[in-house]
Amino acid sequence: MKSYRKELWFDVPRRRELINITEDVAKCLGESGVREGLCLVNAMHITASVFINDDESGLHADYERWLEQLAPEKPHQQYRHNNTGEDNADAHLKRTIMGREVIVAITNGMLDFGPWEQIFYGEFDGKRPKRVLVKIIGE
Amino acid sequence: MKSYRKELWFDVPRRRELINITEDVAKCLGESGVREGLCLVNAMHITASVFINDDESGLHADYERWLEQLAPEKPHQQYRHNNTGEDNADAHLKRTIMGREVIVAITNGMLDFGPWEQIFYGEFDGKRPKRVLVKIIGE
Amino acid sequence: MKSYRKELWFDVPRRRELINITEDVAKCLGESGVREGLCLVNAMHITASVFINDDESGLHADYERWLEQLAPEKPHQQYRHNNTGEDNADAHLKRTIMGREVIVAITNGMLDFGPWEQIFYGEFDGKRPKRVLVKIIGE
Repeated sequence: MKSYRKELWFDVPRRRELINITEDVAKCLGESGVREGLCLVNAMHITASVFINDDESGLHADYERWLEQLAPEKPHQQYRHNNTGEDNADAHLKRTIMGREVIVAITNGMLDFGPWEQIFYGEFDGKRPKRVLVKIIGE
Repeated sequence: MKSYRKELWFDVPRRRELINITEDVAKCLGESGVREGLCLVNAMHITASVFINDDESGLHADYERWLEQLAPEKPHQQYRHNNTGEDNADAHLKRTIMGREVIVAITNGMLDFGPWEQIFYGEFDGKRPKRVLVKIIGE
Repeated sequence: MKSYRKELWFDVPRRRELINITEDVAKCLGESGVREGLCLVNAMHITASVFINDDESGLHADYERWLEQLAPEKPHQQYRHNNTGEDNADAHLKRTIMGREVIVAITNGMLDFGPWEQIFYGEFDGKRPKRVLVKIIGE
């Protein structure tokens, strides 16, 4: 069994942003040499997500509006977590909706995707360096 | 390490439906010959889900009503994604709530489930052929 | 390839509670002897979750309030599932938001975590014995 590990680093200048990382993950897979296996991609921070969906700017705007409805950032004092001096409780909740991780099948050395699947890093509390873990196991 | 791959195809006549696919996945596991490992089951389309919950029709009606509250289908023009000519932005959001994938442990050649766990395909934008990927690795 | 399996049992005296199980999972990893691989941790019951987030009591209070907004427990009769004699439809929905499972990378014999990642068991229908499955594969 082969295993491979890499961290992808992000320093997003805005509080929230969705970044397509499919090519970064595909490059990791190439480096790993794995032909059959599983690829885990997870946010290493608890106010960010990794998820699979469509690379369409209208949909991304819909996500922004929808997540703000389900878990609004402001007023910050509506959340007890923010009594700790943080202002990012909403980011913990938004990440919960969007998910921490994806697992992608590896077949014939490729990410085994349907026609529109793309991997995104979802930043919900940016303006600082944060990481995504890519872990691949297989043969 | 063994690996196994199969696509399950669905062509749901309605826009939304929840379909129990546990037996299909168990059949894949039998074909794989894997006794110890992991089984990934994921929607290959970004307006559909794979999730684990209860096979109880009342709960499925509750899911339908609840998802329509959290991410209503209509009016279609409330979503910017639908400006592209699509009408399925809500399906992208519903799938986000329900999840893209599940990973099931394989133990002694069986899906290692609790008493009520069943795997479902959640279709949120049907009336066309769509796929689920089953990928199994182990020994 | 090595594989390891263990059940963690919980009998939570309240209906809802979030329990940090990171040390339990780390202990399983030690017992497994796996140095490189993947660790699946999943609720075996469909009214409970396993998720990764922050061990901060304010945030946990925010989760309680937020989940009650998104999927309120009462009135019980608002849910068709509860016509079966159950009163736990809300717990099925809350678990859907929080997720069934996490996959953690194993690197150098350790859970490969970012700085604040902790694994939680989320009980949403307690007062009875329930289980979490830990399945580890790797080398």
